[in-house]
Amino acid sequence: MLIVMDKDATPAQIEAVVAKIQGLGYVAQPIPGGERVAIGILRNPGPVDPALFLDMPGVIQAIPVSKPYKLVSREMKRADTLITFPNGLTIGRGHFVLIAGPCAVESETQALTIAHAVKAAGAQFFRGGAYKPRTSPYSYQGLGEPGLKILAKVRQETGLLIVTEAVDTDSLKLVAEYADVVQIGARNMQNFSLLRQAGQVGKPVLLKRGLYATLQEWLMAAEYLMAEGNSQVILCERGIRGIGEHARNLLDLATIPAVRRESHLPILVDPSHAAGRRDLVAPLARAAVAAGCDGLMVEVHHEPEKALSDGAQSLYPEQFAALTRDLATLKPGGWA
Amino acid sequence: MLIVMDKDATPAQIEAVVAKIQGLGYVAQPIPGGERVAIGILRNPGPVDPALFLDMPGVIQAIPVSKPYKLVSREMKRADTLITFPNGLTIGRGHFVLIAGPCAVESETQALTIAHAVKAAGAQFFRGGAYKPRTSPYSYQGLGEPGLKILAKVRQETGLLIVTEAVDTDSLKLVAEYADVVQIGARNMQNFSLLRQAGQVGKPVLLKRGLYATLQEWLMAAEYLMAEGNSQVILCERGIRGIGEHARNLLDLATIPAVRRESHLPILVDPSHAAGRRDLVAPLARAAVAAGCDGLMVEVHHEPEKALSDGAQSLYPEQFAALTRDLATLKPGGWA
Amino acid sequence: MLIVMDKDATPAQIEAVVAKIQGLGYVAQPIPGGERVAIGILRNPGPVDPALFLDMPGVIQAIPVSKPYKLVSREMKRADTLITFPNGLTIGRGHFVLIAGPCAVESETQALTIAHAVKAAGAQFFRGGAYKPRTSPYSYQGLGEPGLKILAKVRQETGLLIVTEAVDTDSLKLVAEYADVVQIGARNMQNFSLLRQAGQVGKPVLLKRGLYATLQEWLMAAEYLMAEGNSQVILCERGIRGIGEHARNLLDLATIPAVRRESHLPILVDPSHAAGRRDLVAPLARAAVAAGCDGLMVEVHHEPEKALSDGAQSLYPEQFAALTRDLATLKPGGWA
Amino acid sequence: MLIVMDKDATPAQIEAVVAKIQGLGYVAQPIPGGERVAIGILRNPGPVDPALFLDMPGVIQAIPVSKPYKLVSREMKRADTLITFPNGLTIGRGHFVLIAGPCAVESETQALTIAHAVKAAGAQFFRGGAYKPRTSPYSYQGLGEPGLKILAKVRQETGLLIVTEAVDTDSLKLVAEYADVVQIGARNMQNFSLLRQAGQVGKPVLLKRGLYATLQEWLMAAEYLMAEGNSQVILCERGIRGIGEHARNLLDLATIPAVRRESHLPILVDPSHAAGRRDLVAPLARAAVAAGCDGLMVEVHHEPEKALSDGAQSLYPEQFAALTRDLATLKPGGWA
Repeated sequence: MLIVMDKDATPAQIEAVVAKIQGLGYVAQPIPGGERVAIGILRNPGPVDPALFLDMPGVIQAIPVSKPYKLVSREMKRADTLITFPNGLTIGRGHFVLIAGPCAVESETQALTIAHAVKAAGAQFFRGGAYKPRTSPYSYQGLGEPGLKILAKVRQETGLLIVTEAVDTDSLKLVAEYADVVQIGARNMQNFSLLRQAGQVGKPVLLKRGLYATLQEWLMAAEYLMAEGNSQVILCERGIRGIGEHARNLLDLATIPAVRRESHLPILVDPSHAAGRRDLVAPLARAAVAAGCDGLMVEVHHEPEKALSDGAQSLYPEQFAALTRDLATLKPGGWA
Repeated sequence: MLIVMDKDATPAQIEAVVAKIQGLGYVAQPIPGGERVAIGILRNPGPVDPALFLDMPGVIQAIPVSKPYKLVSREMKRADTLITFPNGLTIGRGHFVLIAGPCAVESETQALTIAHAVKAAGAQFFRGGAYKPRTSPYSYQGLGEPGLKILAKVRQETGLLIVTEAVDTDSLKLVAEYADVVQIGARNMQNFSLLRQAGQVGKPVLLKRGLYATLQEWLMAAEYLMAEGNSQVILCERGIRGIGEHARNLLDLATIPAVRRESHLPILVDPSHAAGRRDLVAPLARAAVAAGCDGLMVEVHHEPEKALSDGAQSLYPEQFAALTRDLATLKPGGWA
Repeated sequence: MLIVMDKDATPAQIEAVVAKIQGLGYVAQPIPGGERVAIGILRNPGPVDPALFLDMPGVIQAIPVSKPYKLVSREMKRADTLITFPNGLTIGRGHFVLIAGPCAVESETQALTIAHAVKAAGAQFFRGGAYKPRTSPYSYQGLGEPGLKILAKVRQETGLLIVTEAVDTDSLKLVAEYADVVQIGARNMQNFSLLRQAGQVGKPVLLKRGLYATLQEWLMAAEYLMAEGNSQVILCERGIRGIGEHARNLLDLATIPAVRRESHLPILVDPSHAAGRRDLVAPLARAAVAAGCDGLMVEVHHEPEKALSDGAQSLYPEQFAALTRDLATLKPGGWA
Repeated sequence: MLIVMDKDATPAQIEAVVAKIQGLGYVAQPIPGGERVAIGILRNPGPVDPALFLDMPGVIQAIPVSKPYKLVSREMKRADTLITFPNGLTIGRGHFVLIAGPCAVESETQALTIAHAVKAAGAQFFRGGAYKPRTSPYSYQGLGEPGLKILAKVRQETGLLIVTEAVDTDSLKLVAEYADVVQIGARNMQNFSLLRQAGQVGKPVLLKRGLYATLQEWLMAAEYLMAEGNSQVILCERGIRGIGEHARNLLDLATIPAVRRESHLPILVDPSHAAGRRDLVAPLARAAVAAGCDGLMVEVHHEPEKALSDGAQSLYPEQFAALTRDLATLKPGGWA
C-alpha cells in the first residue's frame, strides 16, 4: 500500500499516517518526492483496506501495491501446473484438450449418442450437467444422481473422462465420486463454502470465471481451492456480461496471456456460453485456440432443438467435427 | 416471443418457423407488417430461448416478450407486501426502517456497544455477520455460532431485531434460528440451492442485489424464494460494479421506482457497500431516502480502524446519529 | 509511478529499471520492502505510461500515483468555484439552480410556452437544443440558428438565462453568442477540438459526463477547457450505461461528493437522461438534491407526445412544478 | 414496436394505446394472446420511442422490433462490400489486409524507418497519426500538416497506402487530401458533424468502434457516413472498456461474425489498443484472424520507449515480422 499525501500536507498529518500504520503493526516508510510525500506500508501480511486512510486529513490517495494471491501466482511457483489423469491424459500447457458434450445430461441414450460423436471427432473429455443452476426456478434443474450414473456409463463405454458441475455443498461429494474433473460454475465462483469444500475433494477442479469477475477476483477464488490443499485447479474463461445483444457474453481472450503471466494454472476457454448462439461458437473457438488456450469446452447436442437447456448454443455433432478439423490447423497448445 | 423475418423471407421460410413453433407445442401467430412478417409465439408456459430460432433461414430477430417472473410481479399481486414482526414492527411501503450495525460481529462488547448506540439513534434492526463471505481465504471469516449467540444477546438487551447473513446451506438453519431476518448476500444471489432452502426456513429473507445482476435476474432470484412458499422477501439494492475508483460500487437508485412498478416487494438500500468509504455514505443514504426506499441498512462501528472487516466504510456512532437526524427531514417512507 | 519488482528480481533487473527511468529524464528511487523492491519515479512532469515498464524482466506491476489533472483539482485551488452572471445569479456551492426546458427548441410558441411554465415553477435557466446530436441520421437534428434566435427571445421575454448545446466547432461561435451557458454533450466529452475552442469562447461551459467516462476522464476533459483559460466550468452528471432495461442510464450520485473532494468545480445533475422515462425523473431528481448537487437540469415539455426528441422523458409542466415544490423540502444546495 | 399490455388491462386502456398509435400516424395491430393483449405498431418510417407508451395505464412493456439501420444492413445489400484502391489493392471479405505503423508520425526518419520495416514484413497500408486525440491537454497532440506531408512521402517511397485519422472537421479536408483511408477514432464515433462531413470527402473511411458502443450504435454511425453517399466504409473493432487491469480494453471478437450477419461492410481489428501492452498484442492479433476478420491494424515502432504516444503497446519491427509469419498459418481472410 502506498499512501499519497496532499502537496500541502502538514508534517503533523504525515506523522499521523505513520502512526496509524505503526498502530496496525506494520512498517511505515515515508518517501519524499518532488512535490509531495508518499508513505509506503511494508511488512503487512495481507491486503490493507485503502479506505482506512482515505478520510485522514492530508491523504489524497491510497494505492494497493501487493497482489493478494499467493499460491496461484507465477511468482510463487514458476513452472506451469500440469494435471495428469490415471489414463495418462494431461491438462496444462502444451497438452491441448477438448471437452465436449451437452449442457445437461438428459438420458442415457442422449448422453451416449453425443459421447460417441464427440469422441470420434477428437474430444478426450465429456461434459454434461447432472445438476444445473438455472436463472428461473421453473427451468429444468437436472437429473441429479441418476445423471451422474449415466456419466459413469459414458466413461465406461467410451473412455472419455467426465467433467461435471457441483452446484452446492450438498451434491459436491457425490459429484466428486463420479467426476474426473469437478466443475464450479460462474455463478458459484465466489461461493466460498463450496470452494473450500471443493478444495478438499481430491479431484481436479475446473473453475469458471464469474459472471463479471476481474482476473484478480478469479485468481482469489482459485486461491481458496489451493489454500485447502488442492493444487489441481483449471481455470476456464467463459466471457463476462457485455453490451448490446449480439452475443450472450463477452469473451475476454486477453485473460489467456494474462493468466499465463500471473499464474501457473492451466486456462481453458468455453466459447459456447460466450456465444449463446450456434453460429458464433466456431469463430470464438478458433480465436481462443489461436490466442493460446490450453483447451476448449464446447457444448454439443445431436437434437439441440429438443435440448432441455442451452440447446441454441449447442453445435450439431457434424459441426463439432468440422470445428475440430479447423482447430487442428491452428497449432492448438503450441503458441509460445 | 416475437420472431421477426427478413423482408425477403420466403413463404417456405415463414412456414418453417411456424412449424417449429408448433412442434414445440406452442401457438404461432403470423403478423404481416408493411415491410416484413413477424410471428408471435403464444401459449408458451415459460420463457422460450430466442437462439432456437436465430439460425433458421429468413429469421433476423427473436424478441422475448413475456417477463419470466410471476409470484414477485406486481401484475400477479397488486398490493404492496408488508412484513410484520411479532413485536409489531413492519417492513414495507410506508413503514420506513433503519437497520444498522457492524459488518461483522467481533465480540459481545463490540456488538452491544454498537447496538446501544444505533438504537439510541433510531435504528429498529441490528445487523452484523457471524459468517462472512470474503474475497480472500486469508481474511477474517466470522465467529460462527458464537457470533449468533451474541446477536441473540443483543436482541434480548436492546429489543433490536436481528438481520444476519447465511452464507451457505450448512449454516442456514442455525442462522434462521437466531435471526429475525435472514440475509442472502450479493455473491449468493444466484446460489440457487441456498435460495431454495432459504425459501423454506419460515423467516423473512433480505435478498441483496447480485454484484452485477440486472433487475430481472434479481427478481428471478426472489422468485426462487417465493416459489418455495416464502412470501416474506425484502429486496436490498447495494450497487453494482461501476467504473473508475471514486466509489466501491455504483448505487442504482432507479431500481427503487422500477421495483415499485414491477413488484410488490419492499426495497431497502445499503449505502455502505456502495460507498466503500465513510465520507460517501451519508450523501448516498440521503439520496436513497429521497428516492423513496423503504429503509436503509448502514454499517456502523465505534472503532472502525480496528474492525476486522469493512471498517473503512463504517460510520462512527455519532455520524450515524447525525445521519438519522438528517434523514428525518427527508420524508422517509413518505414519497408516493 | 511505482514500479513493483518480482520478489526474485535480480540486482541487474532492478538496475535496468532505474536506468530506464533515468533515461527518460526522471528520478528513480528504489524502496526496499520486506519481500521485494519497489522503485518510485519522481520528477516526471506528466503521466508516465505504465506499459513502458511492464515487459521489462523482473517487473510485475507499474502503478500510477499522481493524478493527471491540475487546474481542475481541489489541491490546486481550495475554494469552490462560483460563476456569477450579469443578472446576479450564481452557479456553485450553496447557490442551488434549476435549469429546465425541452430537449429541442421546436418553435417559438413551444419554447415560450414551456419557458413561462418553468419560470413560474422556479427555474432560473432555460434549456433547449438548437443543434441536436442524434444516434440516427434520420432523426430530428434541430432548427439551427433560428432555434438560437428563439432562445434569445425566451431570455428577453422571461429573463431566464439560456443553456444550449454546441455540437461542433462550426456552430460553437454562434451558440456562444446566444447562450449564457454553452453545453458540451456527453458524446462530445472527449471531442478535444471542441473542448479546446470552447475553452476560448468567454462563456461558462456546462460539461456533461461522457457516456461511459470515469471521473478522472471527465475531470481531464474539464482540464482541457481550463487549460485554454476558461475557469467557468460546470460539471453535469447524467448517468452512464447501466445494465438491464429499467432505466436509460445509471445515475452515479457518488460523483457528487467525489467531485467535491477532487475538484473545486460546481456539479449539477441531469435526472432526465438518466431516467429515460417520465416516471423515474422525480425520484432521481430528489435523490440528486439530497446527495448535495449544486443544481438540476430537467427536461420539460407541455406536449411531450408531440416532441421531436426525448418526449418520453420530459415532465409535463405541472409535474415539474410539483417536483420543485418537493425539492424545496430537501435542503437544495444546503448539504455540507 | 410491440406494446405489451397488463393481463388485466381494460378494453378502454387497449383502445387508448391504439388511438395514440394512430394519432402518431402509424397503424396499430392488436394481437390477442393467451393471457394478455399485445399491440403491434406498423408503418412507422423510423424508430418509435418506447417510453412514449410506458406511462400509459395498462402498458407493461414496449419492445422495439425493427432495427434502425438501413444502408449498412445486410438485408438491404446482400453482397459483401469490397473497396478497391487505384493500385489494385482491395479491402473486404476474402482480401485480408495488414495496416501497420506507429501511433503518431513523429519525424520523416521515424516514419520511413518503420514503413520500410512493416512493408518488408508484408503490410500493405501504413498507419500513423498527424493529429492525435489525447485524454490530457498536456500530452503530445501530433505534427499536423507536416505530419501529413511525411505520410505522402512514405507512400511515394514505399508504395504503402496511407491510413490516418481526422480528429475534427477543421482538419478533415486536409487529411482526406493526403490519406487513402480516413480514420475516425473511437472517441469520435458519435461526433455526428464529423461523420456527416466524412461521408462527403470521397475517400474510404475506417470507423473505429466507440469506447463503449453497442454494435447497433456503431452501425448507426456507419449509417451516417453512408447516408451522405459514402459507400466505402470499413469497420474496425478495437475493444471496449473492460474490468480489472489485465488489458487496456476488452476486445470483442464476436462482433466479427455478428457484423457479417448484420452488415455487408468489411470488419478489421486493432489488437494494439485492446492490448495496451506489447505482450498481449500477438495473441489478440492471432485470435482476430482465426475469428475471421478482414484485416488487422497494428502499432509498430522501432524505438517504442522513445515514442511520443502509445509506445508501450507498439511492437518492435521484428516482433511484427514474426507475427505476420504466424498469421500466415491461420488462413487470414479464408474463414467462411
